[in-house]
Amino acid sequence: MNQHGLFTVLDLAGTFAFAISGAVAARNRGLDWFGVMVIAFSVACGGGIVRDLCIGAVPPAGLTDWRYLTVAMVAAVMTIAAGSLVTRLAHPVTFFDSLGLGLFAVTGAQKALIYGHNAEVAVLLGVVTAVGGGVVRDVLLNRVPVILQREIYASAALVGALIEVVGERLGWMSSARTWFALFVCFALRYLSLRYKWNLPRASDYGKKHSD
Amino acid sequence: MNQHGLFTVLDLAGTFAFAISGAVAARNRGLDWFGVMVIAFSVACGGGIVRDLCIGAVPPAGLTDWRYLTVAMVAAVMTIAAGSLVTRLAHPVTFFDSLGLGLFAVTGAQKALIYGHNAEVAVLLGVVTAVGGGVVRDVLLNRVPVILQREIYASAALVGALIEVVGERLGWMSSARTWFALFVCFALRYLSLRYKWNLPRASDYGKKHSD
Amino acid sequence: MNQHGLFTVLDLAGTFAFAISGAVAARNRGLDWFGVMVIAFSVACGGGIVRDLCIGAVPPAGLTDWRYLTVAMVAAVMTIAAGSLVTRLAHPVTFFDSLGLGLFAVTGAQKALIYGHNAEVAVLLGVVTAVGGGVVRDVLLNRVPVILQREIYASAALVGALIEVVGERLGWMSSARTWFALFVCFALRYLSLRYKWNLPRASDYGKKHSD
Repeated sequence: MNQHGLFTVLDLAGTFAFAISGAVAARNRGLDWFGVMVIAFSVACGGGIVRDLCIGAVPPAGLTDWRYLTVAMVAAVMTIAAGSLVTRLAHPVTFFDSLGLGLFAVTGAQKALIYGHNAEVAVLLGVVTAVGGGVVRDVLLNRVPVILQREIYASAALVGALIEVVGERLGWMSSARTWFALFVCFALRYLSLRYKWNLPRASDYGKKHSD
Repeated sequence: MNQHGLFTVLDLAGTFAFAISGAVAARNRGLDWFGVMVIAFSVACGGGIVRDLCIGAVPPAGLTDWRYLTVAMVAAVMTIAAGSLVTRLAHPVTFFDSLGLGLFAVTGAQKALIYGHNAEVAVLLGVVTAVGGGVVRDVLLNRVPVILQREIYASAALVGALIEVVGERLGWMSSARTWFALFVCFALRYLSLRYKWNLPRASDYGKKHSD
Repeated sequence: MNQHGLFTVLDLAGTFAFAISGAVAARNRGLDWFGVMVIAFSVACGGGIVRDLCIGAVPPAGLTDWRYLTVAMVAAVMTIAAGSLVTRLAHPVTFFDSLGLGLFAVTGAQKALIYGHNAEVAVLLGVVTAVGGGVVRDVLLNRVPVILQREIYASAALVGALIEVVGERLGWMSSARTWFALFVCFALRYLSLRYKWNLPRASDYGKKHSD
């Protein structure tokens, strides 16, 4: 399998993991079958759709490429039909979710660069691609997006997108910088989950350090 | 009245019904006059605006065509000035809301096809056109979108958009497939309200069928 | 300093005030550093990004122009590091927030006109530019947008955008109408805060006036 093929497989694995996370959250909230499918698709493709709108790549790839929809629907049906099986899959799902985060951050930033936009746009849209779906999920399920709270999630995506874009500007070899960016983002997220690293709350800091 | 004229009338009737549903929900939530107008307009035009952004039809028709804004404002003012009259209109409002759902699903899918996009994009954007406004309303009013819960709403829109797009691909006559798609979506929604048909919750299914 | 330079300074001051309002709300909600930054940036640039998507100005200026991001980050860091100082700044923040509201309403409407869109689009997008960020903030923080409730906020933006667009159509001198529109919007908002002017609730009106 060449690198492009490998990326496609990882991309679909990330999409699947994101869709599972959406479907499980929707199921736990008591939504119906259709609602679970909508949330699964939104989480898997929402970030990429916003990115594509911002760079003028219409219609967004999440709508035109049947593979994303198919993967999201498979994830939704699995979650509906075999909820406890999916629960048992929690560990691999976390693994692929972290992988998806890194991958979406890197490919999101790359796509913005390919469309000729500047480094700031690329970094911001890399983060949007990676975390947008999760934000949509939490807004639809009526809760404050978890990524804005204590976990290292969007910040890991930011690091991944930054490495990719800075590396491109510094002329690093394409495949090397991509794998490195992906690895660092994945590792940050995965290790933060394992060892419960959190960013401090803004108000804690304020209490200690301001007058 | 020719078919195009009839469609325009139905389109504005659907817009009116959607705007009423938004205005009533906003009024019950205690918003001020301006808030009621904003929500009425968002429900009536929100889905179409998202569709137009996704197919690159900017600025969106909901912003450029004064008739949508006017109809939404009339609906908002009626709801503010004569709340109990609007409540007595509940039955016709439900009727036009179901009609609007079918019409928006069909015309949304058509517009995507006219812009040259593929069948998947057309079906997805048909559903977005039909249900997007209601999702925006519920997000702004800070609740889980009702369409993701137990009612047959988005699923009726999906059936309508599917019939329109599949019919177009199979070469059915344009007016026949449009009326058929509209009728099926309308009937599904209207009968589901009357006889309280619901989609099962994802978690009920999970409880019974998974180990 | 010429008028263009003055406008740039006011624009950045408005961005700063909007970012502060977002950062303070996020901090009070217990978000982490990164969440505070995201909300600060969303409030400062969210309205303009939606406007740019609607007029086809991609990528949106809020993403391409480093000054907006920088100003928002400075506001976020100030709020995190010196919360009580920011609280003491409440009065100037309110002042600049009102100024930002007027400025964003006017410049948002202008940008739509410059892109060749009609008066209705310009007025609606002026309002969206001015209030969009606040709506995004409240949706992310999981509450009904305050601008849809009793305060004179979006309605002041509407007045400002209307003056700008009607003045342009009537051939008023560009700088005169802009300053007048900005002043009226600012004054409406600022005085309404000082004297606690509110729009009536839709349901109050309904109770008194409908049968």
